[in-house]
Amino acid sequence: MKRLLKPSLDWLLIFVPITIGLHYAFPDNHTLIFVCACLAILPLAGWLGHATEHLAARTGEAVGGLLNATFGNAAELIIALAALNRGLHDVVKASLTGSIIGNILLVAGLSVFAGGLKHKVQKFNPVNARVQATLLSLAAIGLIVPAVFHWLAGPAGLAREGALALEISVVLMLLYFASLLFSLHTHKNLVRGVASHEEVHAGEPGHKSWSFARSIVTLLVATGLIAWTSEVLVGSVESAAHSFGMTSLFVGVVVVAIIGNAAEHSTAILVALKNRMDLSMSIAVGSSIQIALFVAPLLVFASYVLGPRPMDLLFTPVEVVAVVLAVAVTAQFSSDGESNWLEGAMLLAVYVILGIAFYFLPEAAGHAGTAAPPGPGTVH
Amino acid sequence: MKRLLKPSLDWLLIFVPITIGLHYAFPDNHTLIFVCACLAILPLAGWLGHATEHLAARTGEAVGGLLNATFGNAAELIIALAALNRGLHDVVKASLTGSIIGNILLVAGLSVFAGGLKHKVQKFNPVNARVQATLLSLAAIGLIVPAVFHWLAGPAGLAREGALALEISVVLMLLYFASLLFSLHTHKNLVRGVASHEEVHAGEPGHKSWSFARSIVTLLVATGLIAWTSEVLVGSVESAAHSFGMTSLFVGVVVVAIIGNAAEHSTAILVALKNRMDLSMSIAVGSSIQIALFVAPLLVFASYVLGPRPMDLLFTPVEVVAVVLAVAVTAQFSSDGESNWLEGAMLLAVYVILGIAFYFLPEAAGHAGTAAPPGPGTVH
Amino acid sequence: MKRLLKPSLDWLLIFVPITIGLHYAFPDNHTLIFVCACLAILPLAGWLGHATEHLAARTGEAVGGLLNATFGNAAELIIALAALNRGLHDVVKASLTGSIIGNILLVAGLSVFAGGLKHKVQKFNPVNARVQATLLSLAAIGLIVPAVFHWLAGPAGLAREGALALEISVVLMLLYFASLLFSLHTHKNLVRGVASHEEVHAGEPGHKSWSFARSIVTLLVATGLIAWTSEVLVGSVESAAHSFGMTSLFVGVVVVAIIGNAAEHSTAILVALKNRMDLSMSIAVGSSIQIALFVAPLLVFASYVLGPRPMDLLFTPVEVVAVVLAVAVTAQFSSDGESNWLEGAMLLAVYVILGIAFYFLPEAAGHAGTAAPPGPGTVH
Repeated sequence: MKRLLKPSLDWLLIFVPITIGLHYAFPDNHTLIFVCACLAILPLAGWLGHATEHLAARTGEAVGGLLNATFGNAAELIIALAALNRGLHDVVKASLTGSIIGNILLVAGLSVFAGGLKHKVQKFNPVNARVQATLLSLAAIGLIVPAVFHWLAGPAGLAREGALALEISVVLMLLYFASLLFSLHTHKNLVRGVASHEEVHAGEPGHKSWSFARSIVTLLVATGLIAWTSEVLVGSVESAAHSFGMTSLFVGVVVVAIIGNAAEHSTAILVALKNRMDLSMSIAVGSSIQIALFVAPLLVFASYVLGPRPMDLLFTPVEVVAVVLAVAVTAQFSSDGESNWLEGAMLLAVYVILGIAFYFLPEAAGHAGTAAPPGPGTVH
Repeated sequence: MKRLLKPSLDWLLIFVPITIGLHYAFPDNHTLIFVCACLAILPLAGWLGHATEHLAARTGEAVGGLLNATFGNAAELIIALAALNRGLHDVVKASLTGSIIGNILLVAGLSVFAGGLKHKVQKFNPVNARVQATLLSLAAIGLIVPAVFHWLAGPAGLAREGALALEISVVLMLLYFASLLFSLHTHKNLVRGVASHEEVHAGEPGHKSWSFARSIVTLLVATGLIAWTSEVLVGSVESAAHSFGMTSLFVGVVVVAIIGNAAEHSTAILVALKNRMDLSMSIAVGSSIQIALFVAPLLVFASYVLGPRPMDLLFTPVEVVAVVLAVAVTAQFSSDGESNWLEGAMLLAVYVILGIAFYFLPEAAGHAGTAAPPGPGTVH
Repeated sequence: MKRLLKPSLDWLLIFVPITIGLHYAFPDNHTLIFVCACLAILPLAGWLGHATEHLAARTGEAVGGLLNATFGNAAELIIALAALNRGLHDVVKASLTGSIIGNILLVAGLSVFAGGLKHKVQKFNPVNARVQATLLSLAAIGLIVPAVFHWLAGPAGLAREGALALEISVVLMLLYFASLLFSLHTHKNLVRGVASHEEVHAGEPGHKSWSFARSIVTLLVATGLIAWTSEVLVGSVESAAHSFGMTSLFVGVVVVAIIGNAAEHSTAILVALKNRMDLSMSIAVGSSIQIALFVAPLLVFASYVLGPRPMDLLFTPVEVVAVVLAVAVTAQFSSDGESNWLEGAMLLAVYVILGIAFYFLPEAAGHAGTAAPPGPGTVH
């Protein structure tokens, strides 16, 4: 199965030059550019992931952990920075939301479902699962509190939302570093699944360890191409969304998120089929934690340097609800350290229900400014 | 205790002809008709349950499971169809809400409390309990998402709420069949409690296995009488509610739900006293799951054929909150596979608190149309 | 460490006469009076706690449990009664909220964090932890339901909120007594941690058992001084808050709560360092349960006798959200009966995030009357 998946992904590299060509030849054909940019990012994200892994294998666990943290979600980060630079905060937030729920519902759901079809009951380390679930809850709280604040404080609180976001971001990122310290240093024996990340590829043909130079060059080239393609992607997302009859919120939360996380998808499912649930869960759930506790705060900090104006942490209510529901279901499912196919189906069902809601939600309701619900005057 | 309970229930059959008589002689005496119809349904629901069980025992586990799914909550389903036919969607939804929270708070609470008074600590299969808790969470999400959608989308989203409800219903029902497949086929050894359903009655005097013909005839007669009595009940519910000083929401959620689930109540408590907590939990919680993942979607589908207009899944906010709280408490209580009387008392306390809120809630706030909260203009 | 902490607390007794002097000499210097009253309550709360413990050790477990229930949170109760007497319901509720979240996030968080730095993994009785978590959930439901009721019922429901609060209070207090019966009588073997409360001090130098007379006299003197100081504190809280640039909600929820719970803080951390997590959790979480299920209902009852008007249970939305998030995180963290420093850090992070939100929230949004969210007319 791996041999089938891999070649097909690398074939998609052809879309990198195609996207470049289209961008200059037909700058107004947004829909075609969007589709090609999406297809071009898929294999690039895969190569970025490989380069990071090989580099991490060479630099030792501690530095490798940090590299994973910074480059593991590099595709999402770069897409988000490109949108941030244009001041498209709604797109940034939609891609964060989409990554969080996509990883814990779609990636974890597919992994648990596929693994469960092959293995009756799959076990994973419950201590690690619970620590991850609690970190996810903290991430959810980091989204709930600004939304509730906005909702309650009203106009009087608007001026303080930037400071609130900044301080919450500091707390979230501190806790992210604390969790790295926990899993890489003080309690590394408790969370063994993560350490065996490299073994998976090491034992397979065609995956010999890369040289340091090759890893660095691949990393830089892939990052550069993703950065450029992301710029093009973000520039075309709104027009493309409309031509498909989709809202930009749906495209950001569902379409872009699936593309940005394509590498995690295939790896997590493959290792689940091999009954390595600890690794599978740590890729899926760990990726969501990185996005929420590291990437999101980083983007808030970056917005003070890069963007036209500082970004806050005010997500749309539907995004907050989606993240809270996804986190709650994941916490419930993972607490016992066992999984079966029905639990995978349930995670997927929640993802589909949320996706349906995002699809049907009118464009106007998908902006953070509508965090205050409509009063009776507008509804009745 | 059983001998005391059973005869008294069958005596209530006298109210079937009384209700028929009243309905034709005094069609305007809604309060008396409502009370008599309630009393008439109690024994009929019991006979319907017995017939289903005996039929299930004859047809084998797989078909029996489906029969239980379709007829186990037949009384609620018929009451709901009668209301659906008249376009009383609020009554339908109130009875669904009432069945869900009534089963997991009142029925499970009484069972755990009564069983816990007799047995210090009662154990049940934690794997099964967790699967059921996750299914309940999915059911809750199926209610939360349409309510949040309505709240956020505002007038622009009204036209899409029907499609949203229809698609979510498909997801919920697919997952219900997946859960049947899981517990009756792929993982039937994990969820043994359900299989011992028949044993309980089999070992008792006066509960010899019925013939196929007797089961079918009882099923048809009981179903027919319940259908007719439900029509009468639904026709009188609003007038009766007002004459008792109750809102129709309270009558639907609390009174009708207790009547429709009377059969489950007595069985679940009796088996809890015999320390068969797996069976007791599977009757109480399983019934809620059936209602939420099978009956509710079925009613949405049926509304396209039967009713004057399609029904959506938009419940009143207080119903959504009640179901979410009930599901959260049940998930928390059942995750460890152990119960004691205090946990039963806590479930009952949550039911009483919710019941008080439903009782005091003004009539106007009990309609789904008020899902948008009052703005400051109306409150201050 | 204990010897360092204890003497410093007793030195603060000097602030009792200082506060008395200031109150009469400079009645308008609210800020100085507030600070001195805070410092004076710290050692008094400690002595009140010691006296209760010694008394409980003499009277046997059953009566001791009740004494702990009534006097264990006596400082908070007296502060609240002083505020109730002046009709400052917002202050009363803020101090209840602050005690609940302060105990389960700050006290438990510091205990788990400090204990976790010294001991790699700390274990506690999971059955007891789950019973406590479920009681906390009930407490949260007791806050959610009145808030949702107010939000939905609108003006039509205002008249019934008093009755709703009264009936919910009865349910909560009944369940509190049920939980005492459970842990002191029917299931006392299951919840052993509580019983070893006295041992901690018994084995330490300078903590010989007090005579009955000494306990009673200390109890009465400390109670009297706290009562008087609380009156002064409550009288100065609003002016002091403004001079510090803080809202009265922030002062009530964060500052007053930390002061009122200072005694629990030091004890819970000290026993966590000694790896007695059962006792530490029972002090922190048990104290929150007492506040929510015993003190809050008691204050509702008391408001019919003492205050200018009856108090309801309608907390501000931000308080409800804070309690719900705190309860959810605590339930998640404690369900496995194990703790480590990262979990302590996560509880503290949630406390800090909530504290930031309370700090930035404008004064106007901190009143219960704004439970209805602003409509679009005011925001857009």
